[in-house]
Amino acid sequence: MSSSSFFDRTTPVAFEGPDSRDPLAFRFYDKDRAVMGRRMEDQLRFSVAYWHSFTWPGGDPFGGETFNRPWMHGADPLELARRKAEVAFEMFRLLDVPFFAFHDVDVAPEGETLQQSIDNLKAITDIFERKMESAKVRLLWGTANLFSNRRYMAGAATNPDPDVFAYAVGQVKAAIDATHRLGGANYVCWGGREGYETLLNTDMKRELDQLGRFMAMLVDYKHKIGFSGPILIEPKPKEPTKHQYDFDVATVYAFLQRYDLLADVKLNIEQNHAILAGHSFEHEVKLAFATGIFGSLDVNRGDDLLGWDTDQFAMDVKEMALVFHEMLKNGGFSTGGLNFDAKIRRQSIDPDDLLIAHVASMDACARGLLAAEAMLEDKALTGPIEARYAGWDKAESKAMLAGEMTLEQIAENALSLNPQPKSGKQEMLEGIVNRYV
Amino acid sequence: MSSSSFFDRTTPVAFEGPDSRDPLAFRFYDKDRAVMGRRMEDQLRFSVAYWHSFTWPGGDPFGGETFNRPWMHGADPLELARRKAEVAFEMFRLLDVPFFAFHDVDVAPEGETLQQSIDNLKAITDIFERKMESAKVRLLWGTANLFSNRRYMAGAATNPDPDVFAYAVGQVKAAIDATHRLGGANYVCWGGREGYETLLNTDMKRELDQLGRFMAMLVDYKHKIGFSGPILIEPKPKEPTKHQYDFDVATVYAFLQRYDLLADVKLNIEQNHAILAGHSFEHEVKLAFATGIFGSLDVNRGDDLLGWDTDQFAMDVKEMALVFHEMLKNGGFSTGGLNFDAKIRRQSIDPDDLLIAHVASMDACARGLLAAEAMLEDKALTGPIEARYAGWDKAESKAMLAGEMTLEQIAENALSLNPQPKSGKQEMLEGIVNRYV
Amino acid sequence: MSSSSFFDRTTPVAFEGPDSRDPLAFRFYDKDRAVMGRRMEDQLRFSVAYWHSFTWPGGDPFGGETFNRPWMHGADPLELARRKAEVAFEMFRLLDVPFFAFHDVDVAPEGETLQQSIDNLKAITDIFERKMESAKVRLLWGTANLFSNRRYMAGAATNPDPDVFAYAVGQVKAAIDATHRLGGANYVCWGGREGYETLLNTDMKRELDQLGRFMAMLVDYKHKIGFSGPILIEPKPKEPTKHQYDFDVATVYAFLQRYDLLADVKLNIEQNHAILAGHSFEHEVKLAFATGIFGSLDVNRGDDLLGWDTDQFAMDVKEMALVFHEMLKNGGFSTGGLNFDAKIRRQSIDPDDLLIAHVASMDACARGLLAAEAMLEDKALTGPIEARYAGWDKAESKAMLAGEMTLEQIAENALSLNPQPKSGKQEMLEGIVNRYV
Amino acid sequence: MSSSSFFDRTTPVAFEGPDSRDPLAFRFYDKDRAVMGRRMEDQLRFSVAYWHSFTWPGGDPFGGETFNRPWMHGADPLELARRKAEVAFEMFRLLDVPFFAFHDVDVAPEGETLQQSIDNLKAITDIFERKMESAKVRLLWGTANLFSNRRYMAGAATNPDPDVFAYAVGQVKAAIDATHRLGGANYVCWGGREGYETLLNTDMKRELDQLGRFMAMLVDYKHKIGFSGPILIEPKPKEPTKHQYDFDVATVYAFLQRYDLLADVKLNIEQNHAILAGHSFEHEVKLAFATGIFGSLDVNRGDDLLGWDTDQFAMDVKEMALVFHEMLKNGGFSTGGLNFDAKIRRQSIDPDDLLIAHVASMDACARGLLAAEAMLEDKALTGPIEARYAGWDKAESKAMLAGEMTLEQIAENALSLNPQPKSGKQEMLEGIVNRYV
Repeated sequence: MSSSSFFDRTTPVAFEGPDSRDPLAFRFYDKDRAVMGRRMEDQLRFSVAYWHSFTWPGGDPFGGETFNRPWMHGADPLELARRKAEVAFEMFRLLDVPFFAFHDVDVAPEGETLQQSIDNLKAITDIFERKMESAKVRLLWGTANLFSNRRYMAGAATNPDPDVFAYAVGQVKAAIDATHRLGGANYVCWGGREGYETLLNTDMKRELDQLGRFMAMLVDYKHKIGFSGPILIEPKPKEPTKHQYDFDVATVYAFLQRYDLLADVKLNIEQNHAILAGHSFEHEVKLAFATGIFGSLDVNRGDDLLGWDTDQFAMDVKEMALVFHEMLKNGGFSTGGLNFDAKIRRQSIDPDDLLIAHVASMDACARGLLAAEAMLEDKALTGPIEARYAGWDKAESKAMLAGEMTLEQIAENALSLNPQPKSGKQEMLEGIVNRYV
Repeated sequence: MSSSSFFDRTTPVAFEGPDSRDPLAFRFYDKDRAVMGRRMEDQLRFSVAYWHSFTWPGGDPFGGETFNRPWMHGADPLELARRKAEVAFEMFRLLDVPFFAFHDVDVAPEGETLQQSIDNLKAITDIFERKMESAKVRLLWGTANLFSNRRYMAGAATNPDPDVFAYAVGQVKAAIDATHRLGGANYVCWGGREGYETLLNTDMKRELDQLGRFMAMLVDYKHKIGFSGPILIEPKPKEPTKHQYDFDVATVYAFLQRYDLLADVKLNIEQNHAILAGHSFEHEVKLAFATGIFGSLDVNRGDDLLGWDTDQFAMDVKEMALVFHEMLKNGGFSTGGLNFDAKIRRQSIDPDDLLIAHVASMDACARGLLAAEAMLEDKALTGPIEARYAGWDKAESKAMLAGEMTLEQIAENALSLNPQPKSGKQEMLEGIVNRYV
Repeated sequence: MSSSSFFDRTTPVAFEGPDSRDPLAFRFYDKDRAVMGRRMEDQLRFSVAYWHSFTWPGGDPFGGETFNRPWMHGADPLELARRKAEVAFEMFRLLDVPFFAFHDVDVAPEGETLQQSIDNLKAITDIFERKMESAKVRLLWGTANLFSNRRYMAGAATNPDPDVFAYAVGQVKAAIDATHRLGGANYVCWGGREGYETLLNTDMKRELDQLGRFMAMLVDYKHKIGFSGPILIEPKPKEPTKHQYDFDVATVYAFLQRYDLLADVKLNIEQNHAILAGHSFEHEVKLAFATGIFGSLDVNRGDDLLGWDTDQFAMDVKEMALVFHEMLKNGGFSTGGLNFDAKIRRQSIDPDDLLIAHVASMDACARGLLAAEAMLEDKALTGPIEARYAGWDKAESKAMLAGEMTLEQIAENALSLNPQPKSGKQEMLEGIVNRYV
Repeated sequence: MSSSSFFDRTTPVAFEGPDSRDPLAFRFYDKDRAVMGRRMEDQLRFSVAYWHSFTWPGGDPFGGETFNRPWMHGADPLELARRKAEVAFEMFRLLDVPFFAFHDVDVAPEGETLQQSIDNLKAITDIFERKMESAKVRLLWGTANLFSNRRYMAGAATNPDPDVFAYAVGQVKAAIDATHRLGGANYVCWGGREGYETLLNTDMKRELDQLGRFMAMLVDYKHKIGFSGPILIEPKPKEPTKHQYDFDVATVYAFLQRYDLLADVKLNIEQNHAILAGHSFEHEVKLAFATGIFGSLDVNRGDDLLGWDTDQFAMDVKEMALVFHEMLKNGGFSTGGLNFDAKIRRQSIDPDDLLIAHVASMDACARGLLAAEAMLEDKALTGPIEARYAGWDKAESKAMLAGEMTLEQIAENALSLNPQPKSGKQEMLEGIVNRYV
């Protein structure tokens, strides 16, 4: 198999403008267009996820493979990994994306021993390194898969068996080494099975302490090797476990404070994980900015009516516009990016479906970005918010907040007050947003 | 109306043993029975909630009053409040409970001005004080209702209008003063409308800072007046707002760390709020103990298939047994108690329904407590957990956790490991629990 | 109070085109524009709901009135009802909507007796009749509120007490009489409390039979008085009860078949009720068309992350486009319309908020309608679907479906088949929809 | 591998009474004890599910095999199937259960062609037939897996490709033939992928008609071959598809009416599917009895806080008691039984975990059955319900229900009524249930 035989096309997808009807052309994603002072490509920083696009065979709990990818069937795992890499880099080129992201086991086969696994990862890292010399694509982040192998069935860092903890340390070292070597902008930790299936057999406090130590060691090591990007934790509330310790942004924020990790660890926030936790994507992003731990985004969408991670391609312009509005307001991405942690449906078995899905979602994001820019320029949302809280700009209000007044003093003043409620104007604001999307 | 005319019975509900068929007798709640070194009454510390039992008329969003309580209809609000108090203290006596709890507006009518409201509260506090001289019942906690009046429609401490913030300060001062005067064991803050309806009009960061300041002032004041009990925050994820800032235990823990409130603020955890946040009651209680912020419990139950706070009386012995197992393991309640934040269904319109509901739920709790005691004595659950984590007791494992080994050292050691998974034995443990309940 | 003093403006809201920034102008709702052969106004058939806009005071389970409408405070209920009607008809005029809808108790106060309630309703019907002589607005539907009064706390038609059943019959007769007199296009039954709080006290089979009889009598009566519109049942899964018998479209379809009501009863489908039942709005509408029981729509939106009926104004253009796509494909509304079963948020306390909310949502619907028209004209979705099922157009396929082949014959033929799956092209179709909205 | 080498024990699990602490002894399941006129074994009719216990390797969407069963690894699929059968029948013997159930592909490997698959199934059916000559175990039901193979990714009967429909017919014929030959008491159809992933590519009406035809053919064939048991449809709302056409009991009832299948098709109801649809297990069972379509039960439990099918072993005595109360009230099972559609957790990797899980759940069911019997004998729940609806026993009430009075007549009578609500006594009834469990 040559890479060219997998996808029909050989020329990268190009911008054609809003009137295009070609599902393999961009209608809004115009990479060099300036948005809030940066090229659109540099604002959106799209990344392709290796796992969903190249490693998942289309299975679900009720059925197996549907995609029948040629690189998934053969006798030599390393050779298959090389073929997979060919297709992957070809797709990065066709989509003209600036980034990709991977888990260790996505790119290289696990060996019989930890050493073999590390060797396999190095062999593939060599290949990636060579490919990246000529390719545009950079590494947004790498990570270690500490949840698929049966040894991790009861967690990795939080495992009741200290040998599993140690094994996970060994694996994560190799993964951050590979990430560092490939110039990765961030290193991500997704909790996998760091959680529990039942409290009946779980010592939660002990497990949290194990996880705190694990992260602290990783931070130390990052500094030691001079890895300049942040460590990112990716919150998820449940699935595969009944409860994941990195439940949502607030929970991880509590964890980072408790284990003194705020300086080095930020968040990678995913839409589908947000809604599984009962929050909007926008909420999680706003809370991360408010607490200073925003890092990167996994862009996808869940189905509000389903209770599991569907990881569909994001297509909702309004949702993206509100998230980007917050992001642009805060200066945009630093090391982070928009990683497509999204998989085509298991019925989307044509090779072109992979391209089409990315193109359609990149366009939805681009529209959202343009809408966010316009809203910010018009102060469409920021203006009304400033006006709503204007009372707090008064000196006596500031004094209350600054701790310059005691409870008794404020209570005494309150005896002469009769504050009247003011309209929240929600529907007017919703109508305004609809003007931009 | 005399109090004796509301309830048919005049003698307190008594323990009759498991074979009783009288819905107004205790089958398991035997207050003087010793459980883990305390009287059952002192372990469970039951409290009746003033609001659900005496202030709620039976309405819901689709219909009005069903109960037609005599103390809810009349021209003189203070006189009605006095009548209500008669019935309330009569019920405390009939149920023989050691505690009750209230919001300011449950017990005293709001006035036209803040001063009038404060005066009304004082008038009722006088009455309570006199009644408590001869009654057994003590005050578990008091609180201020900062969410029902329209002035609080956009929050109290988190309101965009600083005058509302100040007004709330005035109200909360009066409420903690009353609580202190009545010997309250705790003071509770439930978030009410501290949250948002839409992010479109909300500055989340600013509002969180307001809330942090509010709590800090309350803590200062508590110390100043010598109120020895803790301030308790009661987490709730949503309802009435779309998002409440005190979402769950982890979120409040993050908040307490951020605003340096850990020393003085603990949690009041409710079953129904737990499940609305996607957690089991047991999870929330365990996390509170693990982080050192456990305070008290609002005992009720939600309906797992409904998405709002149903506040039903707790009837599930197994759920209570697992919560009490955790609590007893940690030494039981300190200042906290089991407050019935539970309301009879709006179709339960007979006066006796109020008594029957409390009796049935107190019995379910008592059974749960006895089961928890037995499990602890047998080490039915604690034994298997200790065995499961025994590997961490080894010196080299402890060294890893204590930060005495670097990531590289552990990774190096890991090269010789091949850890094998061990059964989690979930079904066996579930079967064991079923032996006790 | 004169009606003109409630709203600031006196001139109806007008179409100004997409560039307008006035929240009180239409940007897309251009009533005379032709869409699929009808005027836009005749396709959309907007209706204002009396209850949310004029009867709800802004309360929720945690707080009371916020709106302080002048017609809600006064000594004479009938006089207040008249004032309310003034404002309502003024709003119909300002919004230039063709329809409104009401419950009996929205428009007229309940009396001490059934006869008084009927008399009050007649008095208001007189007023409405006179107003409608000169107004443009028509009645989309009327209904009886059989759930707010405490007599209905255990249901109306499904009440364990036959006297309540009879009382409900009396009330519903008066309501359909009023609807008929005012030229109502439909008569609606929403299940209210036809359901249960607990199965422990419920005979479900008996209650379903009661409900079947109730509906059959209503159908008979409708024919007798010559009411030509359909009876519409409005499905809702839960709230206020734990389980409502009219759970969703499929459940009502089962009920209509069982009680032989298919000829006369259709459905009024609501977005918020759909998602509470775990379905998309589009699903419910498609199923209603597939089973021949589509009638009308309650247009609003729920919050996917909240578990109760939020009844917000619909603002999602894509969702409406897909619903209208199905509707237009099936010829559009017959007697039905788009009733705004939506309420402004309780913080939207300005009179203008009422107008702004309707205008913004009417515009979102109009955009959806135009997108649906364009998709149909381009066969953007219908084309791919026809192609996908084209195999069933072959004679031998039709024979299978027509029952002309036995299982054995088909099984025998299958021995020579090896069917290959074809891509479902979901992401491509999602991208196509994004081109239109 | 001999079967004896998989499980440690060789003697069947026996009844030891409530005080036993052996997780491999029955504490309540005393098979010969009489319950409501039948042996407990004949009331409960337990069945082991082949798929979860012997075919599932312990994988989930985030990780692979954990169990490492010896019969899952080898070169010869038929030989592996034979080994699996050895272990299965050994487990049936050890658990002393009267029934088992299977899908075709659970027991026999799929071939390259339909004919090969049929041949494989026949080969295994031969083996089962021989084993059943000497074993106690009977076949509760068989079924065909029409969802795992990629050919069924877009459904079987509802596939857009008529060749897939035909292939499914071929497979289902072989499965019912095998079921018939083995004396199966029922034949089950679970909807698998009969549903949709997105409405954008789906013609729902057409697909429902396909499904109706499919079922009608199956019914015809069942009669033709003299299969005396019912066809059972197993409702499930979602997963693997976004929407399954057999959503819940009410939806299937609508389907059976529409396609005239009521005489031959009943339901197989599962707890976990019930709660995913937003219903309690008890609700679904009651509705099935009320509509005359109750057939059999898949006994397991879901996690109320998770949104997917966890298929855990049922351990809640109260839930089972209420379901059995309804079942016993209606005379108990006819052809149906209690099939353990439950899987041990993927961390329960010891062979004994398989036995322990079944034993613990059989005991929970047995306790529930005994509680149900006691409640029925005492009329603990049926008595209060009869009293609650007693008003409907009066002649004039019956006349209303029988259609002997018109709406006008009842409305006229209602003018003299003033019905007063009566307490629903929910908490009292909950307390009563707690006396029995």
